[in-house]
Parts: sequence; C-alpha cells; structure tokens
Amino acid sequence: MSTAEETDGDSAPWAEVTPEAARRLLVAAVDAFAERGYHATTTRDIAGRAGMSPAALYIHYRTKEELLHRISRIGHDRALFVLEAAADGGGTAAERLAEAVRSFVRWHAERHTTARVVQYELDALGEEHRAEIVELRRRSDAVVRRIIGEGVRAGEFDVPDVPGTTLAVLSLCIDVARWFNAQGSRTPDEVGELYADLVLRMVAAKR
Amino acid sequence: MSTAEETDGDSAPWAEVTPEAARRLLVAAVDAFAERGYHATTTRDIAGRAGMSPAALYIHYRTKEELLHRISRIGHDRALFVLEAAADGGGTAAERLAEAVRSFVRWHAERHTTARVVQYELDALGEEHRAEIVELRRRSDAVVRRIIGEGVRAGEFDVPDVPGTTLAVLSLCIDVARWFNAQGSRTPDEVGELYADLVLRMVAAKR
Repeated sequence: MSTAEETDGDSAPWAEVTPEAARRLLVAAVDAFAERGYHATTTRDIAGRAGMSPAALYIHYRTKEELLHRISRIGHDRALFVLEAAADGGGTAAERLAEAVRSFVRWHAERHTTARVVQYELDALGEEHRAEIVELRRRSDAVVRRIIGEGVRAGEFDVPDVPGTTLAVLSLCIDVARWFNAQGSRTPDEVGELYADLVLRMVAAKR
Repeated sequence: MSTAEETDGDSAPWAEVTPEAARRLLVAAVDAFAERGYHATTTRDIAGRAGMSPAALYIHYRTKEELLHRISRIGHDRALFVLEAAADGGGTAAERLAEAVRSFVRWHAERHTTARVVQYELDALGEEHRAEIVELRRRSDAVVRRIIGEGVRAGEFDVPDVPGTTLAVLSLCIDVARWFNAQGSRTPDEVGELYADLVLRMVAAKR
C-alpha cells in the first residue's frame, strides 16, 4: 500500500496478490527490475528489498522469471480490462475510442514503473509465458481495431489504414510510460484528455 | 559494416567512430546493452563480443559508462540532425512536419536496437553526460515545436496545445523503436508514410 506509484483512487497496487508477503515481493521485484533491469537483478536483491530472506522468496516464487511473468500477466490483464470496459461502455465509436485512450493512458501514467517493466522485459520471459502475453496483447489490439472499424463502418471515422492506425494509437499510449514523470507539469488525467483529442483527430472523427 | 541493423543506403553504422577497433567495440556494446541491459553487461562481455581482450577495450574507453555516453551522444546527434534538416528544408509547415516525421521514424525503425539503448538507458548515464543528452533532447523538441508553431501562425494547422502535441508527435515516433520488427510486414519507409499522415491529422493540417 506504500509504493510511490499509487497516485489516485485506483485499488492498492497488486492488491490482487496474496498473501501479503507475495505482494511485497512483487512490489520489490517491479522496483528492482525498473531500476537495474531484469538480467542485473537477483532473487537475493528482490528478497532484500522486501526485507525478507532468499529462502522466504522461494516459498512464493520458484524463479525470478516467475516473478516477471506474474507482473507481466497482471499488467496485461489490467490493460486489456480497461480497454474492454471502454469498448463495451456504450455511446458512439468516438466516445468509446476516447474513453479507451483516456483510461489506457491513465494506466500507463499512474503505473509507469510497472508498465516499463512489462513493456521492456518481454524478451526475458520463457517461451510459454511469452506466448501467453503475446496473446493478451493481440486481444488488446483487437479491441481497439474493433472500435475504429465500427467508427469507419458507421461513417463516423475516416481511416485509410485501420491496422496501422490501431498500432499507432496503442503505441502512442504505451509510450506514456517511458516519458511520464509524476513530478511533471501534466497529471495522468490531463495527458489522457490531450491524447483522446489527438486520437480522435487521427481517425478524423466527425464532431 | 555487418550489423543486422544496416538496412538501406544510410552510411555504415557508427562509421563516424574511428579507429576500427573503437567502432567494433561500440557495435558490440549496443548489442550487449540491448540484449541484457546496461547494468547486466560487463566490459569483459563487450570486449568478448568484439573479439578483443578487456585490456584492448580500455585503450579506447575508460569505462562502460563512456561507451553508453558515446552511443547516446551519436544517436541523439543523428536524431537532431534529421529533424533540423527537415525543418530547414523549405516548403509549407505541413511539408516540413511530414518530412521530419518520415525521417525521424525511419531512423528509429532502421536503427531500432541502437534507439532502444539510447531511449531506455538514459538513467544509467553519469550526471554531466545526462545533462548533455537532455539538452540535445530539448533541442529536438524545440525543432518540432517550431514547425508546429509556424503552421499554426500561418493558419495551416489548428492545434490547441502546441507543447503537448509536440510531445505526442515525438513520443509516437520514438516508440517505433520498441515495436518495429525488421521481419514484420511494414518497411521503415511505409511506417514513415503512415505516421506522417497521422501527424498531419493530429495538427488538423489543411490539405
């Protein structure tokens, strides 16, 4: 409940991870991976950051890769959840696309340390875990592509290249995790509003 | 002259680095940092990849940080150069903005391994080197902001938030380095064309 990333009314980071010792280890792993990179971090480092012994870590996670997989899985599940909630939320395609961008951007701004680990350490996952995460990313992509496609068919949007525009929209939102600074001049909500407007321009939404 | 990244008529990667041994070490450092992260890479790893001894490395670079700084400096100089060339290239603001996006995207696609190291390992630079790189980034930002501002003043663009839109345009282009795959379905030129069109939409360019 104490990481620097917790910035708003969102539930406590990793509240879904129990017991408490497993949650603390996950928070410590995110911080260590973000600071030094996955390959430069040892399970001893992670246990130390969590104030625990290496032996205590192994009760909850067999390997360092299992920690990365857990972080990546929860991060991707959450990202897919916010996109699906926006897509199924009702309203015009423009309203749903704007809401998808706002909530996806907010997630990447508020949880930027987690998002960086999730985005930049994909190659460190084992083959099976990587395939599972790639499938979640494919589903996130499909949600956004569906909203844009619906807008085009309804005559609301003018988009010559729907897959390419989908890729660009998601990329724009994901990169917020790289540059966002909690001490910077824009709040996560402000970035979300700016980006929702820019994305509606990208699809030439009739307003 | 042999790295996998060399994809087109661009000059050989790191051709500006001499003598040849220093260039080979730099290419090896880029590959090692990209694969394992800066902190997990040793100067011994880098020398080994270049087929040289650690002692031979120290003739050219005193520290690992000096290698990262050299990579980051050349990468940022090159990025600023392509943006300035486009900005000063003549034509309308829309033509110059489109060309800036095309060439900036091409650079991040063709040199994606280098660009990832340059973008993700900024925090590993020493204080003085980091300040120098931040200044180069500030200048790249200013180039794009200037083109957008000129378009707004000329009545070519409609942009409510010029600094925010500048940030988003650069972020969109930079993130190409994260997702671009040389085996993927789009060439660097095709991504550049797509993105130039999307950015002209973001600024509501009159066409």
